[in-house]
Amino acid sequence: MSPALERWFPILDWGRRYNRSLLTADGVAAVVVTLMLIPQSLAYALLAGLPAQAGLYASMAPLVLYALMGSSGTLAVGPAAVTSLMTAASVGAVAAQGSAAYTEAALMLALLSGAIMLVMGAARLGFLANFLSHPVISGFVSASGLLIAASQLKHLLGVTLQGDNLLQLLPQLWHNLPSLHVPTSAMGLGALGLLLLVRRQLKPGLKRLGVSAGAADLAAKAAPVVVLLLNIALSAVWQLAEQGVRVVGTVPQGLPPLTLPGVSSGASATGGWAAPWALAQALWVPALLISLVGFVESVSVGQSLAAKRRERIDPDAELRALGLSNLGAGLTGGFPVTGGFSRSVVNFDAGARTPAAGIYTAVGLALAALFLTPWLFHLPQATLAATIMVAVLTLVDVGVFARTWHYAKADFIALLLTFGLTLAVGVEAGLIAGVSASVLLLLYRTSRPHIAVVGQVPGTEHYRNVLRHAVLEQPGILGLRVDESLYFANARFLEDTIAAQVAVRPGVRHVVLQCSAVNDIDASALESLETINVRLQASGVQLHLSEVKGPVLDRLQRSHLLAELSGQVFLTHYQAVQALTLVV
Amino acid sequence: MSPALERWFPILDWGRRYNRSLLTADGVAAVVVTLMLIPQSLAYALLAGLPAQAGLYASMAPLVLYALMGSSGTLAVGPAAVTSLMTAASVGAVAAQGSAAYTEAALMLALLSGAIMLVMGAARLGFLANFLSHPVISGFVSASGLLIAASQLKHLLGVTLQGDNLLQLLPQLWHNLPSLHVPTSAMGLGALGLLLLVRRQLKPGLKRLGVSAGAADLAAKAAPVVVLLLNIALSAVWQLAEQGVRVVGTVPQGLPPLTLPGVSSGASATGGWAAPWALAQALWVPALLISLVGFVESVSVGQSLAAKRRERIDPDAELRALGLSNLGAGLTGGFPVTGGFSRSVVNFDAGARTPAAGIYTAVGLALAALFLTPWLFHLPQATLAATIMVAVLTLVDVGVFARTWHYAKADFIALLLTFGLTLAVGVEAGLIAGVSASVLLLLYRTSRPHIAVVGQVPGTEHYRNVLRHAVLEQPGILGLRVDESLYFANARFLEDTIAAQVAVRPGVRHVVLQCSAVNDIDASALESLETINVRLQASGVQLHLSEVKGPVLDRLQRSHLLAELSGQVFLTHYQAVQALTLVV
Repeated sequence: MSPALERWFPILDWGRRYNRSLLTADGVAAVVVTLMLIPQSLAYALLAGLPAQAGLYASMAPLVLYALMGSSGTLAVGPAAVTSLMTAASVGAVAAQGSAAYTEAALMLALLSGAIMLVMGAARLGFLANFLSHPVISGFVSASGLLIAASQLKHLLGVTLQGDNLLQLLPQLWHNLPSLHVPTSAMGLGALGLLLLVRRQLKPGLKRLGVSAGAADLAAKAAPVVVLLLNIALSAVWQLAEQGVRVVGTVPQGLPPLTLPGVSSGASATGGWAAPWALAQALWVPALLISLVGFVESVSVGQSLAAKRRERIDPDAELRALGLSNLGAGLTGGFPVTGGFSRSVVNFDAGARTPAAGIYTAVGLALAALFLTPWLFHLPQATLAATIMVAVLTLVDVGVFARTWHYAKADFIALLLTFGLTLAVGVEAGLIAGVSASVLLLLYRTSRPHIAVVGQVPGTEHYRNVLRHAVLEQPGILGLRVDESLYFANARFLEDTIAAQVAVRPGVRHVVLQCSAVNDIDASALESLETINVRLQASGVQLHLSEVKGPVLDRLQRSHLLAELSGQVFLTHYQAVQALTLVV
Repeated sequence: MSPALERWFPILDWGRRYNRSLLTADGVAAVVVTLMLIPQSLAYALLAGLPAQAGLYASMAPLVLYALMGSSGTLAVGPAAVTSLMTAASVGAVAAQGSAAYTEAALMLALLSGAIMLVMGAARLGFLANFLSHPVISGFVSASGLLIAASQLKHLLGVTLQGDNLLQLLPQLWHNLPSLHVPTSAMGLGALGLLLLVRRQLKPGLKRLGVSAGAADLAAKAAPVVVLLLNIALSAVWQLAEQGVRVVGTVPQGLPPLTLPGVSSGASATGGWAAPWALAQALWVPALLISLVGFVESVSVGQSLAAKRRERIDPDAELRALGLSNLGAGLTGGFPVTGGFSRSVVNFDAGARTPAAGIYTAVGLALAALFLTPWLFHLPQATLAATIMVAVLTLVDVGVFARTWHYAKADFIALLLTFGLTLAVGVEAGLIAGVSASVLLLLYRTSRPHIAVVGQVPGTEHYRNVLRHAVLEQPGILGLRVDESLYFANARFLEDTIAAQVAVRPGVRHVVLQCSAVNDIDASALESLETINVRLQASGVQLHLSEVKGPVLDRLQRSHLLAELSGQVFLTHYQAVQALTLVV
């Protein structure tokens, strides 16, 4: 079998080695993840503004498709908190929630995001995800957690709330809180309290009662499902739906339909292919952002879980697999999916070894869709909201603000900007501003590099910063060490700095640039060096270079600089000063 | 006097030292520049799509205002080729050429660009101009030269042409060329030939005839004015206007009017302040681009001329002065101005010493506006077009393509993209794509840094790349040198590379990162190092650092990394290997 084919379809590799022991391990993990995924899939559909079945559909085909091309044995693909929030924000901007156009747009978003990921994976553009710096991701994820929690208050308390950011949500909450729906609030807050209690106390409590660690762990994992069942039972017995508590209601029984946005619904009647095309144009930017965020979430958790077993994952293969998976979500009535953080950790802990665990999970969800949906009728939406709020609490990282402020102010600015704008304006604005700020701050930082005047450490061949060390300077020779690669953003600064340093030292006849920290010189910096050379020469000063790295020197030899240089290139700064002292 | 006030108003400094000899020098230069500026100001107004007087107006108040705050003694401010082209493109997008709204929009553009420059200068944001890399500027300026030449063909040949890019202009030219206006073409091509001949042959020709170098030089500078006068005379004698040759026509005699966009014209009647506000919103992006391009052109020529006299200019002062100058242009019937390249060189060569030369030039232009405008009636627009085409020929740099291709492929991509998009789509698209490409290519380049496995040069304390040198590796110890600062774009690559290198060396117990080329570690890279540390530790490998630079170590000490590091920080890589060999 060709290695290239195996690289694209890792299933061809692990599938051949599949055996009974792997089957058992994957099967056990699949049961645990299925129990977790049923309520989560419903809850994330609610968060995305879609009917409950969309969550179930997004948890079947995408998982099977991921298994064909994915390289991680533990990643649990499906609807996830942040991407569901982003889906709600971007789809809500083009269609009214509850309308057929809304469902349509969610499908298109999944298709677009799948296509973007597939193309990026095929073109090996996985590195683009690196443009999301850690502070931007932290700020974005923390703010998303708060936004998600805020957006669920309407379901939890039965109040009217609409909006994509806190500036819209909070005043409405303040205004509408007095008119909250008491039975809904009671149900929601009760479920929330119970879930928090179970999450924090159940495992240590059981252990204290002498239950084995394994059994306590399993009980803690199954507990949210028990809370859900309890809520369904209460809701059914008390007939809460008749008291105005919103319940999930009728979920169509059966497997996912085949869907094609713009063709399956009335949109095709009104605009033929024009309507889906316009929809795609309106949604491609959010789809790109969802792809990036989803990919980063997926690859981060996938990598750290793989590393624990000294395995590796292939980021580009992950991109392609997630792409296929999202295409599948768009074609089978779902919405954008990704490898979720919490479920993947559970999958890993439960012993999943290959992507086959995902296939078994999909089978579990299919069984649920076929046989359990009537049971979901009485499930209060407030209970699902409570499930979401408990899950997203872990997203909010308070400590990161202090840590980042302490470590690097520029990173802190990017963090705060992303966090603030995500909360105050929305997910798209926050993410775009954060990425732009990261890049601008990087350019700003490197645009004024540290340039030290260096002198000789007495009795050695070493040269150090004259401001930090007691060193000797040779008259007539100015040694400068640039602590940064030279490129367009700092080329002019170099010109300025050298001009300023020479201007205050009228006796200088030689400038030696120590290039030990210069990893690259781009075309802009090359022109600046040529300009510096010409200007210094015009005022009777020679320009020399020392300690130029191999690859940098190779490249300089392809330019005119070395031929036109008024001075020389020296292997070491010491040799330069030795040779020039003789001349002076 | 306070130094801060002098920094903002350099005139307070040089004005006090002004004397008769400076007056003479500046006065002579002003006469030469005035002779050059009269035809150029008319021509650039034509290029910008404005009536001729706008060019004269833009050459008075802005020059005086620049003199108050400018730090360059030789910069000749006024209308310039590239900014005039950009004005035509951006104003043409919001109003029809020839309408009152068009003039209005040009004034608004100058005001906005002035305000942007003032704010940037006050906030010391001059470094933002560095984001325009040399290849982007080269590609943009060369393409602008070709676009300007193409846009002037309609005046030169008397054909109908409309558009902002070659894809629009060339097919029209092909289609409309047969219907060119013969008398206009004869006049235009004649003037073009004569100007080219004068430019290339007059000075050497006169010298061959025994004329002194100085006189030949002066004759060459005055020649374009003579060509202009000759054309006016021919046009008047042959009554070309009656044969359909477009002439400048009636230019209002007198000094500039006071103008306030949105108030001076009918726009205020329809929308009050809403109209100028909407106009400002539509024009702020082009205004920002014009500011950046104008500033870069200005500061480049200003700096290189100042350096020839071992003087310096202050980029932020230049920004403020150009900002004031553009505000002046917007308030006195002009359009965006900048320090032009060719006129500044002439100003310098003619001996200008202080910004007062600009004030005298403005007086010269005022005299022209008061007394010479009737003479301009018969000046054919084709002659002005020829003037522009000869001037912009110098903008096109063919050699830069080969040079950049040869030196650095990434820079070549940015160059070609900027050049191609400017020609094919327009000035704004070209510039924005070029800047984006520069930044993306920079991030891409630094996102996969050179990471070398290093070994000991036998018998020394030096460590070098094992692939380039015959060096010794210690069993159990993996030495890695990262040739780049560690930041968000390459943090994940570092994780991957270390994981891959350790995976193929099962015997490794220590990884030593040699950080001699690491100038910075941002918060993202810090998290990656923490992740690498934890992952290596989980698989029984210790992580060490060596040769960490002072400022980088200072910062690391403010993080948790050093406390949690499984290994140690060594001063030199040699010490690290010595210490760890004992352990292994």
